[in-house]
Formats: sequence, structure tokens, C-alpha cells
Amino acid sequence: MNVKVKWLKNQLANLKLDGMIITNPVNIRYLTGLSEEGTLIIAKRENIFITDGRYIESVNKKLTIDDEIVVYNVRELDKIDYENIFTIDDNVGFEENYVTYENYKKYLHTYRVNLIETEGLIENQRIIKEPEELELIKKACGITDRAFEYIIRNIKEGMTEKEIAFEIERFMIKNGADGLAFDSIVASGENSSKPHAVPTDRIIRSGDIIQFDIGCKYKGFCSDLSRVVFVDEIEPEYKEIYSFVLNEQKKMADSLKDGANIRLAVKDREEDYKNRNFDIAHSFGHGVGIEIHELPRLYAKTDNILKENSVITVEPGVYIPGRFGIRIEDTYKVNKTNCEALTQCSKNYTVINLV
Amino acid sequence: MNVKVKWLKNQLANLKLDGMIITNPVNIRYLTGLSEEGTLIIAKRENIFITDGRYIESVNKKLTIDDEIVVYNVRELDKIDYENIFTIDDNVGFEENYVTYENYKKYLHTYRVNLIETEGLIENQRIIKEPEELELIKKACGITDRAFEYIIRNIKEGMTEKEIAFEIERFMIKNGADGLAFDSIVASGENSSKPHAVPTDRIIRSGDIIQFDIGCKYKGFCSDLSRVVFVDEIEPEYKEIYSFVLNEQKKMADSLKDGANIRLAVKDREEDYKNRNFDIAHSFGHGVGIEIHELPRLYAKTDNILKENSVITVEPGVYIPGRFGIRIEDTYKVNKTNCEALTQCSKNYTVINLV
Repeated sequence: MNVKVKWLKNQLANLKLDGMIITNPVNIRYLTGLSEEGTLIIAKRENIFITDGRYIESVNKKLTIDDEIVVYNVRELDKIDYENIFTIDDNVGFEENYVTYENYKKYLHTYRVNLIETEGLIENQRIIKEPEELELIKKACGITDRAFEYIIRNIKEGMTEKEIAFEIERFMIKNGADGLAFDSIVASGENSSKPHAVPTDRIIRSGDIIQFDIGCKYKGFCSDLSRVVFVDEIEPEYKEIYSFVLNEQKKMADSLKDGANIRLAVKDREEDYKNRNFDIAHSFGHGVGIEIHELPRLYAKTDNILKENSVITVEPGVYIPGRFGIRIEDTYKVNKTNCEALTQCSKNYTVINLV
Repeated sequence: MNVKVKWLKNQLANLKLDGMIITNPVNIRYLTGLSEEGTLIIAKRENIFITDGRYIESVNKKLTIDDEIVVYNVRELDKIDYENIFTIDDNVGFEENYVTYENYKKYLHTYRVNLIETEGLIENQRIIKEPEELELIKKACGITDRAFEYIIRNIKEGMTEKEIAFEIERFMIKNGADGLAFDSIVASGENSSKPHAVPTDRIIRSGDIIQFDIGCKYKGFCSDLSRVVFVDEIEPEYKEIYSFVLNEQKKMADSLKDGANIRLAVKDREEDYKNRNFDIAHSFGHGVGIEIHELPRLYAKTDNILKENSVITVEPGVYIPGRFGIRIEDTYKVNKTNCEALTQCSKNYTVINLV
């Protein structure tokens, strides 16, 4: 049995659960490596993957005998087969944060078991990355660094935000990425004041700030990077806020390592924002893995101890409504004694000239 | 009040519901035009959109006084505010096909009402398109037609499926699309035998079939088109199956109009497939709108009466495992007396030469 499924089975035993129904495709991918549609069932008797005709062939090709997962075609299962997967009165875990209310009721009807909430059991396990997962994230970060370095040398007179976003995507895919980790943000001038700006037809102009928030996927794993560059010149006010943001990122990253309490690290930064009267428009960071936003969340609501081999972003930003914004973000790996940037392109003031 | 919200309020009254909580962003977009994150609440006293600091400004800019929607910042609402939105013992609809079990329980706790399933109330309303929605879908279809016509004239010696997919996307965006409606399928040679193929690094070769399944979004509305072309030559077997598929599409489209029962139309096509011993690898079509897959579904399970001003695809396909596949698909508008193709590029045998 693969280590992740074995781990899950141990966890279920600890929770006195007789099995689990897993339908979130991200969790299925994490546990089995499968990206095909289907339902993964951990039961006492066997582990099952139920899929359909479109995927049977490729699923059987990917799974090995060591996975100990039996594959069924959904069309070949009847009412009784489903009822026999578990035993009556079994307590079976489900993903209450993924399963809709409608499907919850269908499960009750189909499997005839007691459904028990599992409170992010698998999502919490996903926080700690395996060495091979870390390698894929590093690759994704490298491609993203190079895409940023490429684009800032290739912004031509007359180019729009949309065109720049497109060139970034093209570079990433050409350099081995599966695709984007999320829709790129390329926000110039006053558009940069919106933290979640969507690229527009605005043409880049002299004097602009350009905010980038970009990332790609490499073999299913994500990267996340934000940088700001200045066109032709930097206004003193931009410089001042840029250095505040950069300093906040450094202080936050310096305080994060195995065992650090995220709540306290964030509280300190919030204090700095308060002293400067800056709004906090979004969280200071998030976990990264198969999904671009995973656990842990970097906010100050609850105590939350950071663990070695987690991957997180640190991304402070300051936004002056209607005028401009500056966010600096890197993807970090959490180590025993520090936190190590996986995205590594320059954070010096960068002034570009339109080519 | 806008017509769609007014319609929903009437429906809720018919169902003896005192209000509805709407969180599916597609439904919120449909009802209000808003693409910002938030929760739309229809209550007796007022209609409410609860969002956060990131979106307040742009939401207030988009809504007019005629919308009769009051905007609140989630940070400024407390426990009592939520409990006061509805009256105790109110029966309030929710989207049981969207809301997770976890959120269902949160809603119960937050709003203190009886939550009632609404069984796709809004999704069913979305089937019938407004004239301005039809215009946007037509625009998306036109861009997709032109992207297909462009790409088949520009496939160069040595190009891979991935590169072709990328050029299609670039053409669509350059010609006004917001972006892709779904990840393009460009499947060549034996890859075309998988209905859900993902573009690979396979280089196009003489003698190949190339299967395209492409679509874009225009101002939020989708298009969907599948075509097959042949490189340098057409094998007789390809020709024979191509003409079977094309004929199935024609027969299906001819049988669809306002009032037609989808179940019967699909049953007839399934009969043809059975006579030829072809597998039915996927459904014969689906609704198209804000989402690429909407209601109605074109399958034979239940009686389902087609309505005027719906937009659907008709997409028969035949797949010979490990060898090749052929699917032809258009997006159609359902009229009183017929169904009218909105994607219109040629369905003649198309042989291309690599340039």
C-alpha cells in the first residue's frame, strides 16, 4: 500500500472510523497520484477507486499492484454492491468541506452508513510535503522566476496588461510548465491599487508601477510570486512604500520556522500596519502545493504552529485606493531553523525601459 | 429591481419560501451581473449582497439604485445582524447542489432559519437565455469559428499539439475573448481516440487526424466547437466514420426545437450507435451559457422538454480505442421551429498540408 494511503488508514483507526469516502479530486491526487475523475473509498476489506469508461484504461495503467487499490467501473456497480462496500453501522468519514449537502444525502442513501465529518484530515496531512513534492514545487518556482526575468526585459512600447500576461503564460508553458497555477495578475498604474486586479487593455506608460502576481504548475505542483517594477522612473512615495513592504516580508520570513506560531508572527506585522495606518487588504500568506491556496493560512485568528517541510507564501501588500499598490511575495519552504525562499528573483528596486 | 431578481422573488413566493441564500458565484453573476466574491441574500425586507473590503468599491460602482440590492461589508456584520436578516421560523431556500455540508451547518447556525432545498431553481431559469445573453454567446461562437479557420491554415511542420492549443488561445484573446471557456483539446493521431485528451508534445505528422474541441468566453459567456481535420490524406475508414458522425449530428439537430423531448431525440441516436456497435463514450450534448456545461443535459434518462432560446451543443463522437476518434460539435440556439447553429465553420472533409 502506498505510504499516504497507509497513513490515512492509521489516522482513520485513531479516529475510530471504519473507512472514508474521498471525492475531492485534489485529495485523490494527493493520496494516489490519480488525476482521473472518480471516488476513492477506504474500507476495511479493500481500497476502491470507482471511475467510468473514459478513465478505466489510464487508471489501470497508473496504479500498480503495490497500491492495493481495486478499480471498478461505475456502470458495473448496482445498489447492493454499494451497500456491501461497508458494513451496516460502520462509521465512515467524509469530506464535509467538499461534499455538497445534496451529495451528503445521496451518500447516506447509497452507502447506508453513519457519515462522520473528518475536519480537514487530508488537507492537514497535505501541509507537510514529501521530498519529491518539494522538488516539483522548486521546479515550478524556478520556471516562474525565469518567466518574470524574461518578461521585464521584453515589455514593448504599446503593450497592454493582457498581452504581457499572455507572454508570461507562453514562456512558462514553453519552459516546461503544465500551465498557470492561477490567472496571472498584471496590473499597471492605478490598476495596481486593486489586490485582485484582472489584466486589462490598459497600455503600459512611462512612470507606471507594474504589479505582477504569477505562478505556474509543474507536474501538478504550484508556485506563487509577486513583484513590482517601475517604468522609467520611481517616485519617492513608491520607493518609501516598496521598502516598507519589503521590510515587512523580511521580518515575517525571519520569524517563521518549524515550531513558530503563525498567529504571533502575523500579529507583529499587523501592529506595523496599524502604526502606519495602512489597511490590511488580504492575508499575509498561505500554503502552496497541489492547490495554489492550501493550509496553513497565515492569519492571526488562532494559534497555528508551523511545521518543517511546509511550503508557504509570505506576501505583504499596501494599497492606496485609486492610486497604486505594492505587493511582494515569495514561496518559501519551512525548515528546522529558518524559512527558505524557493522563488529567488531579485527584490531590488527594478526600473525598466520599454523596448 | 432587475428582472432576474424579480423573477426569483416570484418563484420563491410560489414555493412558499421567505427568502434565499445564494453563494454559487455563477448564479450570483447571472442574477446581478456581479463577478465579485460574496453572498446574495433575498429576504422579505431587502435584497442584500455581503462582500468584503476588496470588492466594496467595484460592487458599488456596478450596482445601480434600480437593482435594489443593499451592499454590506462582511467585517461590519455581527451575530445579531445575521440573525435579523430573516425572521425566526422563516423557510429559506439554499443551493443544496453547491453548498457544502460544512457550510450548510454554518448557515443553520448563522441565520437561524429552516433551510429548504431549491432543486436547481436558478440553474433551471438559466436555461432560457435573454436576447443580450444570446448576443454574447454568438460573439463567442464567432471568435471560435475564426480561431479554428485560422489555426488550420497555420499548422507548421514540427508543431506539437500543445503549441497548436496555445496558438488557438492567443488568437482568441487577440480577437476579443476574455479567455478560454475550457482547456482546449488538440488530439492528433491515436491521441484522438481519447474523448478527453489533453494536448501533448506529440508532433503533427502526415496521415494524422487532428481532433479539436475548443471554445472561448466573451464577456462571460461561452462557446463550444469540435472539428476534425486530416493531414495530407484521408483514410477511407476515417471518411466512413466521419460521415456517420456528421449524419448523427444532423439527425439530432433536426429533431431538436422548442417542445422536443430530449429523451426521445437521444434514444434514436443511441439506437443508431447500437446498430453499428459503437460505444457511447459521452453524452450527446449540454447547455452552454455562463458555464460551459449547464442545463439541459442531452441524455436519455428522463423526459426533458427543450425550450425556445436555450443554447445547447450537439456533439456525437465515435472512438476506436488506441487508434483514432472523431467528434463533431456545434453550439446551437433552440428556436420555435428549429435549432440554429451559432458556430458555423465548415464541416466538409478538410485536408490540410503542413506549412
